Amino acid sequence: MTMRDTSLQLRYLSEPELIGLGATDISRCTDVMCEVFSLLATGDYRMGGPNHSSHGIKVDFPLDPVFPGMPKHTSDRRFMAMPAYVGGKYRATGLKWYGSNIENAQRALPRSMHLVVLNDTDTGAPIAVMPGNLISAYRTGAVVGAGARYLARPDADSVAVIGPGVINQVAFRAILAARPGITRVFIAARSAASENAQKFVQMIRSEYPQVEQIEVVDSIRSAVAAADIVTVAATGLAGAENYPTFEGSWLRPGAYVAATSNIEVDTAFLRTGSRNVVDHTPLYEAYVANFTRPYHERLGALGVKYQDMLLDGELTSADIVEFGDVVDGRAPGYDSTRPSFFSIGGIPAEDVAWATELLWEAERRGVGTVLPIWDQPTLL
Amino acid sequence: MTMRDTSLQLRYLSEPELIGLGATDISRCTDVMCEVFSLLATGDYRMGGPNHSSHGIKVDFPLDPVFPGMPKHTSDRRFMAMPAYVGGKYRATGLKWYGSNIENAQRALPRSMHLVVLNDTDTGAPIAVMPGNLISAYRTGAVVGAGARYLARPDADSVAVIGPGVINQVAFRAILAARPGITRVFIAARSAASENAQKFVQMIRSEYPQVEQIEVVDSIRSAVAAADIVTVAATGLAGAENYPTFEGSWLRPGAYVAATSNIEVDTAFLRTGSRNVVDHTPLYEAYVANFTRPYHERLGALGVKYQDMLLDGELTSADIVEFGDVVDGRAPGYDSTRPSFFSIGGIPAEDVAWATELLWEAERRGVGTVLPIWDQPTLL
Repeated sequence: MTMRDTSLQLRYLSEPELIGLGATDISRCTDVMCEVFSLLATGDYRMGGPNHSSHGIKVDFPLDPVFPGMPKHTSDRRFMAMPAYVGGKYRATGLKWYGSNIENAQRALPRSMHLVVLNDTDTGAPIAVMPGNLISAYRTGAVVGAGARYLARPDADSVAVIGPGVINQVAFRAILAARPGITRVFIAARSAASENAQKFVQMIRSEYPQVEQIEVVDSIRSAVAAADIVTVAATGLAGAENYPTFEGSWLRPGAYVAATSNIEVDTAFLRTGSRNVVDHTPLYEAYVANFTRPYHERLGALGVKYQDMLLDGELTSADIVEFGDVVDGRAPGYDSTRPSFFSIGGIPAEDVAWATELLWEAERRGVGTVLPIWDQPTLL
Repeated sequence: MTMRDTSLQLRYLSEPELIGLGATDISRCTDVMCEVFSLLATGDYRMGGPNHSSHGIKVDFPLDPVFPGMPKHTSDRRFMAMPAYVGGKYRATGLKWYGSNIENAQRALPRSMHLVVLNDTDTGAPIAVMPGNLISAYRTGAVVGAGARYLARPDADSVAVIGPGVINQVAFRAILAARPGITRVFIAARSAASENAQKFVQMIRSEYPQVEQIEVVDSIRSAVAAADIVTVAATGLAGAENYPTFEGSWLRPGAYVAATSNIEVDTAFLRTGSRNVVDHTPLYEAYVANFTRPYHERLGALGVKYQDMLLDGELTSADIVEFGDVVDGRAPGYDSTRPSFFSIGGIPAEDVAWATELLWEAERRGVGTVLPIWDQPTLL
């Protein structure tokens, strides 16, 4: 019997270290997301569930827990595990795992607290652990930016921000990286004095001095009327009556509308007036598998509404465009004649790819804390 | 605006540190498992999926991948994410995440490589990360031991080991902690010369000098004929013809049979001759929700066979005993008149509870590496 080196380590990267490695480099993240969409469209990925395209598995809590100390369900309160293998140059496996509590705001903490784990695809051993808040927000924003690269008017000069929170802060940066000619911004907020709206305005003033016009408005209709690009990221309760609501007639003909959160759009317009692009149709098929209809009442993603419309015969699968087909040139990009909606549902492969890119950078530079797992396994 | 301390840390514990904290203390782990079963039976837990009792979400691979570098499915090759909240004194949330590859043996690594993450149930923030191999194996073995405490003959003197691998090494220790009068051991192995069988014999000789008789036999029937306790932990292919197969008539009247892996037992005996105990019926209901029948062909856990038998009218729910009801005294324990089977399916709440116990010990003693998440969140 020869002696083998069975010692294993994993690398820990803190949020400041991740920033040093490029975690806030939105253009680079957008490049990675475009690669991921190509892999998703061709099938070079594996996620959870029967169709290998599940968003993940959720732990949530009862509205009226009878056990002392058991959390009580509130809006968005949940834990979620999102595993994926992503192929291509990544050939990487890992998971994002997060907990959300809207009351975190009272502690000056983000609503969602993320962690990302990366594994050796071959042995399964964990190789890296890192806080996931930046990774998750940047990959989401970068998907909005990837859409802007392909689906927005090339000389777009105006953006509407529906929901001036963390996700839209990053999505805005991604849009401006893809369309640097933006000079006008319309922010829809409950009140112009809202803390988030004011933070958003400050962010634009300090990072994008080329933006000449910033207006905080109190309706979605006012925000989108003159916008070439619309980014929707607003949390809220279930039920279509609570979702940010759009009528297609409010939009400019070639508008690009990215929806990373709940959204309601008039069905007639989606049937005949819009181009309907999704990040990954099987994601929504997996989402609705355990729902009763109408699915969109349960989960406000636009891709879920498309599932309802497909079953109602209001759309056919030929009416739905996979974004990876746009990236790969199998489907056309910008359409000047009608608005393009892009449903962004949150795909574990995105987190794994972006975290892997950052881990590679950490390995190249020797950044992070290398932690021992064992010198040899106790049980073998 | 007052300044708040928003700095966050998480604690990393290596496998050697976990051992120092008691990760291999099988009696303590068995105590924790008994508490977990009480919580599972009363409902003071939340796991994934529609019935809050899912084992987890799996990523697996195709038999014939068409993409370069995509792993190929082999027996047990998978990644699995297993999240849980467990109540009682724990009020703890976390997940186990592992990858399995049977070829790891060639690298002198365990087939499955586990990681456990624990979170602040309230904020969702990660608070601890630790290798999960010991946690996972000890919680599984401890469940076998918990069963021995309640379901085995009080003066049991003999154990049959079906599958002398890692899980049964730990299960054996758990059984001997619960029933210290064991003096005879029968090990079923493909060959008496098998490396695993020989390692198992050595383990018994070095740790349990009171054991007078150790026999390696080549059939399950020979192993169980004189055994008061039987522990089954053998991997293999799907399909009942590949599972370790038992006939009820081979067993002693008061035998306790713990099955942590695939098993086949003659249906007639399960219908009329045995006591049928499970760790948690909703776990199996969640397992089979996406299967076609017969479920037991797809997954070899005994609790899955019970699901088939319930649907076939061969058992009623009154014939299935929840182990937590035994622990809490709502159902009787040892039955001298007939064998008791105990189906052990693998429950995320077990991992979270045991890891939490070890984390508390680490916090008391100041053990581990405390890692910064951030001083303040970049995105808020």
